[in-house]
Amino acid sequence: MTHASDDDREDLGGFGLDHLPYAVFSRDGGPRRVGVRVGDTVLDLHEATGRPEMAASSLNPFLALGPEVWRQTREQVGDLARTTEGIALADVELHQPFEVADYVDFYASEHHATNLGRMFRPDSEPLLPNWKHLPVAYHGRAGTVVPSGTPVVRPSGQRRPAPGQGDAPVFGASQRLDIEAELGFVVGAPSALGDPVPAAGLADHVFGVVGVNDWSARDIQAWEYVPLGPFLGKSFATSISHWVTPLAALEAAWCDLPGQDPTPLGYLAPGQTRGLDIDVEVVLNGEVLTRPPYRSMYWSPAQMLAHLTVNGASLRTGDLFASGTISGPGDDEVGSLIELWRGERFLGDGDEVVLRYSAPGTGGGRITLGEVSGHVLPAR
Amino acid sequence: MTHASDDDREDLGGFGLDHLPYAVFSRDGGPRRVGVRVGDTVLDLHEATGRPEMAASSLNPFLALGPEVWRQTREQVGDLARTTEGIALADVELHQPFEVADYVDFYASEHHATNLGRMFRPDSEPLLPNWKHLPVAYHGRAGTVVPSGTPVVRPSGQRRPAPGQGDAPVFGASQRLDIEAELGFVVGAPSALGDPVPAAGLADHVFGVVGVNDWSARDIQAWEYVPLGPFLGKSFATSISHWVTPLAALEAAWCDLPGQDPTPLGYLAPGQTRGLDIDVEVVLNGEVLTRPPYRSMYWSPAQMLAHLTVNGASLRTGDLFASGTISGPGDDEVGSLIELWRGERFLGDGDEVVLRYSAPGTGGGRITLGEVSGHVLPAR
Repeated sequence: MTHASDDDREDLGGFGLDHLPYAVFSRDGGPRRVGVRVGDTVLDLHEATGRPEMAASSLNPFLALGPEVWRQTREQVGDLARTTEGIALADVELHQPFEVADYVDFYASEHHATNLGRMFRPDSEPLLPNWKHLPVAYHGRAGTVVPSGTPVVRPSGQRRPAPGQGDAPVFGASQRLDIEAELGFVVGAPSALGDPVPAAGLADHVFGVVGVNDWSARDIQAWEYVPLGPFLGKSFATSISHWVTPLAALEAAWCDLPGQDPTPLGYLAPGQTRGLDIDVEVVLNGEVLTRPPYRSMYWSPAQMLAHLTVNGASLRTGDLFASGTISGPGDDEVGSLIELWRGERFLGDGDEVVLRYSAPGTGGGRITLGEVSGHVLPAR
Repeated sequence: MTHASDDDREDLGGFGLDHLPYAVFSRDGGPRRVGVRVGDTVLDLHEATGRPEMAASSLNPFLALGPEVWRQTREQVGDLARTTEGIALADVELHQPFEVADYVDFYASEHHATNLGRMFRPDSEPLLPNWKHLPVAYHGRAGTVVPSGTPVVRPSGQRRPAPGQGDAPVFGASQRLDIEAELGFVVGAPSALGDPVPAAGLADHVFGVVGVNDWSARDIQAWEYVPLGPFLGKSFATSISHWVTPLAALEAAWCDLPGQDPTPLGYLAPGQTRGLDIDVEVVLNGEVLTRPPYRSMYWSPAQMLAHLTVNGASLRTGDLFASGTISGPGDDEVGSLIELWRGERFLGDGDEVVLRYSAPGTGGGRITLGEVSGHVLPAR
């Protein structure tokens, strides 16, 4: 193993001292521990700090401690990484990083919403009247959020009959299994019921980000989604990365979003819409298919948080809110297969999808966010 | 206090030996305990049985033990209730009975779906094409499920402008705050990811029922709900009863539902559609407004469970799935105010809503399910 270096050019594969993402790991079937990645090694934070929250089987106890502890810990971990030998990544098993409390999925890319609106509602305007006034979102199933690497069983369900086959739906394995490449925000510090969190409160509550693949069965979704939204078409699996990148590691990644017209309402903090310059790669069976740019999103992370809580809904440690599919303006920048292949092709059994994420680091190079992988198993 | 009697006519206010619902309570600020209600007393199950899961601050550890343990415990509690003195109900504080894992809300009343379809989409058929083929549902916010008695702060949010006031939404306190009288099903035993639970598996997984008031801001909901369903219009608060009535106490309440046409797909077990003959009362500021009959629902509890998991979605201990608003065919049988008052009047600040539930007991009389109360506080 190599000790981490202070040299900015030594980026350790995107896992240098300016990154330091967190995960939950175990070794040789032993207990789960909180670890931080440095290069190709994992620093055991329980062994290194003795702190009880680092012996937990999820990040939640640490996340609950709030931003001042997160900051102090990052400082301490930076020091430890220079002096302590980590465990080789190959020698550990990685687990679900945190217990998901509520999972909310937004729909914050104008390009994605427009592309899907055209396909799902070909006879009307692609963007519905509310879309540019509020970040549209729905609650997903927290209990089926799984860590990267978990195989995805092709879901079965109802879908519309083929044209000319009558009115009754048919039942069977989904024929239109898709992905959605997204970015997820992990809430650490909770908020009180009845008290909205302002847009400026993002860093007071959100600890960091994960990669998200919101697997979607388009045929199940298209039949079920009126009037209460997606349900079984999404609830069979949502994959997240093992590694949680703290917001503190993304300080060099903040950028201006493309702009918002009309100006949104005051609680959405118009004029302060900062996004993250994160590059995504969608990889199918080893081949890069598309490169969605997160900087092209319409709604900002801070606006999503302010909207989510404006009605007084409380936040809990472990809440996950995701951006929705990241699609840029280019044909090769879309974050779902239905957009790329226009509904003519979807995932087959055995296909493997990997989402990769990178961003500018504070050290001058780039950091590599946790990847999200999964392969498709046949329907049962 | 009175010891419980074996006399069937002695129904102890609906909390006799044929009922025995569970709650979590504390006394004099002491630790939380699992208790069972007998008349106007609470039996401390930790004190009475010494079992560690009865010293938990939620029912979840007990619920996770599964149907054989639930059955044995009910037998043991029946014996204890005849011999052990309980604590006066007035001397205990009741708490959230279980930690809600995922909260799913169905839309299983044909009368309610028809009434709302007419109001929300006046220009089209009230029931959408999928409604009679599958029990429509969405995920709600588990983190804002609160116990009976919790005050509800009037939510603020975006709503459509008044006619003639332009296209831009306005922001403010909801002017159309409503209730939804529902029945909730509490999952005890989990299921594995990828494995659907058949309709016949209801009692293998569902421990019991709670009363549910799914508070709804109709103006926020009407503006936000396309295309991904209700979000902030519902996520500010959902109230549940303190008392969880085991399915075992409802054996005399099973009844045939009104019937389903067209015949649903096989996984929904057509022809085996049994509902529960539970009477509901909606009480506003002490006055009974309506009496929704649960036996009038279109989709059965077993069908809701089979649908929820047919795509392989797993169940966790603490999952809550609710029926959706219970509305019968009569004008005085509706479970929401928008149906009762046709959108002309809604809840004011200070209004108190209580939902009461009762069912035939196995002892020949009626059992009183846990009530759900809440009053409205002004917007912040």
